[in-house]
Amino acid sequence: MDFCVEVTKRAGQMIRDALQKDIAIMEKSSPVDLVTETDQKVEQLIISSIREKYPSHSFIGEESVAAGAPSILTDSPTWIIDPVDGTTNFVHRFPFVAVSVGFTVKQVIEFGIVYSCVEDKMYTARRGKGAFCNGVPIKVSGQQDIKQSLVLTEMNFKKDAEQFNTMLANVKSILSIPVHGVRSPGSAAINMCLVACGSADAYYHMGIHCWDMAGGAAVLTEAGGVIMDISGGPFDLMSRRLIVASSRAIADRLVKEIKEYPVGRDDQ
Amino acid sequence: MDFCVEVTKRAGQMIRDALQKDIAIMEKSSPVDLVTETDQKVEQLIISSIREKYPSHSFIGEESVAAGAPSILTDSPTWIIDPVDGTTNFVHRFPFVAVSVGFTVKQVIEFGIVYSCVEDKMYTARRGKGAFCNGVPIKVSGQQDIKQSLVLTEMNFKKDAEQFNTMLANVKSILSIPVHGVRSPGSAAINMCLVACGSADAYYHMGIHCWDMAGGAAVLTEAGGVIMDISGGPFDLMSRRLIVASSRAIADRLVKEIKEYPVGRDDQ
Repeated sequence: MDFCVEVTKRAGQMIRDALQKDIAIMEKSSPVDLVTETDQKVEQLIISSIREKYPSHSFIGEESVAAGAPSILTDSPTWIIDPVDGTTNFVHRFPFVAVSVGFTVKQVIEFGIVYSCVEDKMYTARRGKGAFCNGVPIKVSGQQDIKQSLVLTEMNFKKDAEQFNTMLANVKSILSIPVHGVRSPGSAAINMCLVACGSADAYYHMGIHCWDMAGGAAVLTEAGGVIMDISGGPFDLMSRRLIVASSRAIADRLVKEIKEYPVGRDDQ
Repeated sequence: MDFCVEVTKRAGQMIRDALQKDIAIMEKSSPVDLVTETDQKVEQLIISSIREKYPSHSFIGEESVAAGAPSILTDSPTWIIDPVDGTTNFVHRFPFVAVSVGFTVKQVIEFGIVYSCVEDKMYTARRGKGAFCNGVPIKVSGQQDIKQSLVLTEMNFKKDAEQFNTMLANVKSILSIPVHGVRSPGSAAINMCLVACGSADAYYHMGIHCWDMAGGAAVLTEAGGVIMDISGGPFDLMSRRLIVASSRAIADRLVKEIKEYPVGRDDQ
């Protein structure tokens, strides 16, 4: 993990450099090209650094999968990497952009790293050893009352009208409880860390990927948080959906409010 | 303005201290009491500091108005103050909390200050003199294409079912354009500054107050942004509604998408 933290710091610096460069070249080239280029460069940096040290390990990375690599979690030691979590934020220089790395052995997450590189916050967690932000221990709020909660989720356009309507109806249901508020920061990994450090009480999402969740899942769990499937069953890293919360009571209540829609699996 | 920047820095320190104290006492006392106490203390600090130097000036402050003071904008030099913008964020230690001050003479905003005190970002703008973040000039993205835009707004529960549904329908309409994304950071003043520095392309809101808007309106305008009423007419500080954008084209497009609902006025 310590080795990976150093690699992740270098990756974060690469993203910050791109955000600087961005200001100079954004008007000439497309922001989408820039993000793709940065995504690929950062993932290559991380994978090549780790592979050199651990040549037998497996990798699941957002860009590698986009390029055709398999996205199947095996028992082999596996690094699950999102080089730039919050790509839309990156394009707009909205200040929540993260590098996320989770490491699994026999399909169990052994540690997670989320580096919110604009904020310069390094979240780390090793199984059974607690969660930290810049080396300082963090824990969830422990809030039990959904009506006192700040809830995170993300909203995006969906071509499937039924899915789009269900996504919006879920936000309406949760606001109607009522909760203190709903916030959308735009990075799954950072959302999980915001719950982990007590700045929000819950986060739910359907349609994300294992690389959005692996690093943050370790941080959240080690900070005392609850993680489960959107149906209330056990969390499944390849299921593309999750609820995280500061307490079981809040997670259970969200399960009741949220209607599911099909999002497929990462390993199918 | 320079004098007020110093006062605002002290106010921000007071908020950061309260957020620290919070960790120790939150379990004993109610977070709502804490925010009310901090709101009042910070507003008293700002008003008493300014009044000592400018005894003839007028004030409109969130807490003073809550305590029964009038909320009417006159031609007199007037300080419009939100001591803690993003109170729900404050309660949850969600990292977007600001002190906002706008100064008007003859009902025209002469300068604005927004201090995002957890991020330690001091936004300042004097009429005709440009906008700055921590002393560095800032400008809007200049984006003209709504489909390339990141749009900010806030969603909250409303007892009036028609208003609640219209608020959610507006989010749906904007997502359907489609835009790059919708974000909800939870502080009106910071939302305006995020558009001012190019991290987002637009922000709209109905139901906020003059103290949420006065400081940010100066920063946004001086950064080259467009500010208007939700109907497309001229911005009215006391109207409780606004659209801000990086360009006229985007603001005009939002006017077309957003359905109005009645929110009253600050001066009625």
